[in-house]
Amino acid sequence: MDVQELKRKAAAFLALHEAPRLLILPCAWDSVSAMLFEKEGCQAIGTTSAGVSSTLGYSDGQRMRLEENMAVVRRIVRQTNLPVSADIEAGYARTTEGVVRSARAVLEAGAVGLNLEDSTGDSSNPLFEVPVMTDRITAIREMASSQGVHLVINLRTDVFLCSEVTGVSRLEEAVERGNAYRNAGADCVFVPDMGDLDKDTISALVDALEAPLNIIAGENTPPVAELEEMGVSRLSFGPRPMRAALALVRKIAREALVQGTYKLMTKDALSYAEVNAWFDRGPTNEFGGTGEDER
Amino acid sequence: MDVQELKRKAAAFLALHEAPRLLILPCAWDSVSAMLFEKEGCQAIGTTSAGVSSTLGYSDGQRMRLEENMAVVRRIVRQTNLPVSADIEAGYARTTEGVVRSARAVLEAGAVGLNLEDSTGDSSNPLFEVPVMTDRITAIREMASSQGVHLVINLRTDVFLCSEVTGVSRLEEAVERGNAYRNAGADCVFVPDMGDLDKDTISALVDALEAPLNIIAGENTPPVAELEEMGVSRLSFGPRPMRAALALVRKIAREALVQGTYKLMTKDALSYAEVNAWFDRGPTNEFGGTGEDER
Repeated sequence: MDVQELKRKAAAFLALHEAPRLLILPCAWDSVSAMLFEKEGCQAIGTTSAGVSSTLGYSDGQRMRLEENMAVVRRIVRQTNLPVSADIEAGYARTTEGVVRSARAVLEAGAVGLNLEDSTGDSSNPLFEVPVMTDRITAIREMASSQGVHLVINLRTDVFLCSEVTGVSRLEEAVERGNAYRNAGADCVFVPDMGDLDKDTISALVDALEAPLNIIAGENTPPVAELEEMGVSRLSFGPRPMRAALALVRKIAREALVQGTYKLMTKDALSYAEVNAWFDRGPTNEFGGTGEDER
Repeated sequence: MDVQELKRKAAAFLALHEAPRLLILPCAWDSVSAMLFEKEGCQAIGTTSAGVSSTLGYSDGQRMRLEENMAVVRRIVRQTNLPVSADIEAGYARTTEGVVRSARAVLEAGAVGLNLEDSTGDSSNPLFEVPVMTDRITAIREMASSQGVHLVINLRTDVFLCSEVTGVSRLEEAVERGNAYRNAGADCVFVPDMGDLDKDTISALVDALEAPLNIIAGENTPPVAELEEMGVSRLSFGPRPMRAALALVRKIAREALVQGTYKLMTKDALSYAEVNAWFDRGPTNEFGGTGEDER
């Protein structure tokens, strides 16, 4: 993608974090989910590593390769006009240089934001030390700035996913980490929880963090208007819509296999024509082809 | 995949067409939908070109490349123990040699069945002439036999999708084509319709076709027990479950964007742990990696 377009999209995406309105960021797992979210009026598209991993046949947690993840991101970018932010888990590398290489691949794929998490994947020592993360953030910011793009760095701290850290100390740890990440150059701090963060915790995070706050939507999350009033900046979906969709596919399969009928698969379904119209048509590839992996 | 395993899976898949029980063949669009169908007890997995195309960012109708399609098939085969049948549309080629190359790619991807359709993609001349199709079938059968594998060839005739051919002549045309395809070496004849085939048409097809019949499931399709009694061999889903799932994702997006709440995305959703457990775990790729495109 042209660097001017990257700059423009990155700036537009960053501005959505600074607006008084909550940025509702759906997380896509493939091109068709991304286009659906665009058609519904979303202003930007994130990705979900858990979702993307499973479509590719991997469990979540850095089992897919960076290149596989970026191929999905590139396909999404190819179709949508919206800014795209890529979930790159913990950066697919052990070194700062390796994580920067992954962040560079995000820009090369045409995305203008990334999610980077501080989980190590090692349950005996679940979070990277703060200086490891701040080094990574600083180095990613330098790399992107050298290209003239304000890559939107969403730094995810997994403090609330760690069973070791509990209660008030968990909140303190998240705030300490979030502010260190912000000082190193992160644009937004993402604090996911196993369940849904309660209103008091969200308020405490907004008050104590010097950065825009990103939380994940769930049934017990306060509604959009309340989150806006509380000062939350970004609300993302994670893999939840995808897993809800899978649950419907399961009901459809069971209806056919157990009851022997097929009502659910056509009930309210989108039409073939509608879905097809979301994508470029052009010639079929038996006469020259539009399909290509890398454009 | 080992040729002995291909032979074994192909034979098992073929036998499912000859059993008195209806083969209910779900059509997957990625690895996670394929694994869901396996976990629900399906005995084989098909793919849907419309579904796969859209996940990759293309409209249906040979816009994706063969290699992109086969990459998805290979990923599905890697995870499932079930026989897999690949939808290769009209074979991604204008020549018999080209279509055989595509069928060879199906076996190389580890699938043991394929769907080939007689649509040209040209509305002024929508169906290939019968001899073109029978040449292709004969040549595919020869290629597979030379490898010692009874590739299950499901030949789709799109007579009922053509608005030009109507009424009884449409039925006659489908039967004539189906029987010619069977004589050339097809194992099963697939007759999709825009809507759902009615009971009389299904019965007439079963009676007149000398091949097992594959139809597509829809809300007006007779239930499984009736189809079995009528002698239908195979019932596939096409892209319908996927489009039903997309409709739910749309409702989820609208709930967040319009109502400002997020109940639907967690209601009845599969858990993160359940979906992850469907896939190999193994080491994360920052320490050596399990992710690879082509294994």
